[in-house]
Amino acid sequence: MTKDTAKLASGCDMPLVGFGLWKVPKETAADTVYNAIKAGYRLFDGAYDYQNEREAGQGIQRAIKENLVKREEIFVTTKLWNNYHSKDHAVPMAKAQNDAWGLGYIDLFLIHFPCALEYISPEKRRYPGWWMDDAGTISSAKVSIRETWEQMEALVDQGIARSIGVSNFQAQMLYDMMTYIKHPISSLQVEHHPYLVQPNLIRMAQEHKIVVTAYSSFGPQSFLELPADFRNRAEKVELLFDAQPVKEISSKRGVTPAQVLLRWATQRDIAVIPKSNNPSRLAQNLDVLNFDLTKHELDSISALDKGLRFNDPGHYLPDHPLYIFA
Amino acid sequence: MTKDTAKLASGCDMPLVGFGLWKVPKETAADTVYNAIKAGYRLFDGAYDYQNEREAGQGIQRAIKENLVKREEIFVTTKLWNNYHSKDHAVPMAKAQNDAWGLGYIDLFLIHFPCALEYISPEKRRYPGWWMDDAGTISSAKVSIRETWEQMEALVDQGIARSIGVSNFQAQMLYDMMTYIKHPISSLQVEHHPYLVQPNLIRMAQEHKIVVTAYSSFGPQSFLELPADFRNRAEKVELLFDAQPVKEISSKRGVTPAQVLLRWATQRDIAVIPKSNNPSRLAQNLDVLNFDLTKHELDSISALDKGLRFNDPGHYLPDHPLYIFA
Repeated sequence: MTKDTAKLASGCDMPLVGFGLWKVPKETAADTVYNAIKAGYRLFDGAYDYQNEREAGQGIQRAIKENLVKREEIFVTTKLWNNYHSKDHAVPMAKAQNDAWGLGYIDLFLIHFPCALEYISPEKRRYPGWWMDDAGTISSAKVSIRETWEQMEALVDQGIARSIGVSNFQAQMLYDMMTYIKHPISSLQVEHHPYLVQPNLIRMAQEHKIVVTAYSSFGPQSFLELPADFRNRAEKVELLFDAQPVKEISSKRGVTPAQVLLRWATQRDIAVIPKSNNPSRLAQNLDVLNFDLTKHELDSISALDKGLRFNDPGHYLPDHPLYIFA
Repeated sequence: MTKDTAKLASGCDMPLVGFGLWKVPKETAADTVYNAIKAGYRLFDGAYDYQNEREAGQGIQRAIKENLVKREEIFVTTKLWNNYHSKDHAVPMAKAQNDAWGLGYIDLFLIHFPCALEYISPEKRRYPGWWMDDAGTISSAKVSIRETWEQMEALVDQGIARSIGVSNFQAQMLYDMMTYIKHPISSLQVEHHPYLVQPNLIRMAQEHKIVVTAYSSFGPQSFLELPADFRNRAEKVELLFDAQPVKEISSKRGVTPAQVLLRWATQRDIAVIPKSNNPSRLAQNLDVLNFDLTKHELDSISALDKGLRFNDPGHYLPDHPLYIFA
């Protein structure tokens, strides 16, 4: 049987397949998470920015209360948003996030983006969201990645997080971090699908024992439900579900195109965090470890690479460019 | 008349066209530089790694002695190599480099690559070169970019360098540096030609008043004279001199393809540092500020973009991958 967890540099095991909480409405998040646990999900990937941490935590708590799972069988990932990077705000915010989940600790805490923005107090605006402050401007804060990482390390030392990592970071930033970190970078979460393969970044991370987690595994599909500035790019390309090699492999093997895309990642030791509100797709997305693609099939999917990034603030914030992937 | 200098964030003026010393043999470097000054060049772009700083400096000294130019009319750029990034070695090495040039000070001192490697003493190996140590391995050193940048700032404070900057850095690294720097990043030198346009990186740098300097402006041409591991990629693509829009504009305007490529950069406020051992091409390469391309012509050249990088250690060191552009 295929290994269904990845060993993190922290020593903890992380499930290779999880449930992504981005765009899960807070009104339904508790039930969604509870049902996902029933369907077999053990990893939940959240973030302050997704605005549903408390509700997701309630879903997990209910499942624990009903003896469906134990806390230690659940793996919770969450992320620190850009406005709380400083040494004054990172730990207090992370503690508040941990309290919202209500599970005692966070399994994996990530820096969401390598961009510090000016602090906005939750009293003034609960969820800063979309990078801009009240005046509609993006105000960078002079907080280094090192300062923020040291706060992440404090979360480990204080027992709030078991493992820590980063999201949306480039290789140079990872190399630089490796010169000063005290606790390892357990995971790098990045946009990763056949239109944005980033083979060198994946290789670099894996060579340094940083487990890669893919977000937006279905590529354009994840962005079609978003406002126009996000959708634009996604609407211009063929859905990955319809891409020739994906369709071919799907029909040959009797699995769904979504399963092909997820297996393309997990077979290369990349964790995935799909989201679905549909119970049968929910179950299918979890069942992506029990068949293997051939090297030729994996390569034929990777050959779809266009270097096409959908989640790029330099694209969807055209008046306030942030070139964090340049 | 077109502006022929760029104002650096340090307050200094840098010529927009200079002479690149990469691959200039040390045996002929003094004469080459002296003749380039006679031809009108004022900026010389060197590096410890190019192994010809002393000789280039001798060429400049001769021209000064013969009253062809004054020191203050000359602009010398040089770079700190990877093995000397630490606080113990950066300033002593930079002082030794400054002594080799013999001109009192360096105009612009750059960190050559965002990669610190273990120190190798000049007594043991004068020029470490090509990343590997004597055992043929690449040994990273735990020296942060911040530590190295602080040494660069010390060079300014001590009057050794007038301006400082970086080379081969990604946007995230620049954003991070901007949270802690005391002296501005005056220039970013990167590979830049129509096959590797990197528009977002250029825009990001320019928005932050970092003057971009392009290296390898002729793309593949610069790499054909190198060993096979470098040549491979360059041999597989059409020379930029033969690319349709470049040829068309060249013949329409009565300038050389090289002049078209250099003007494509300088007209977009990007400094260039071509190299030539041929006296007539030397003069032509300098004469790239006195004609203008139309927006349509600039765009037709930019449309050649393939995201194709030639100077990538992850490519030419296949057994020792360094994914510094991932």
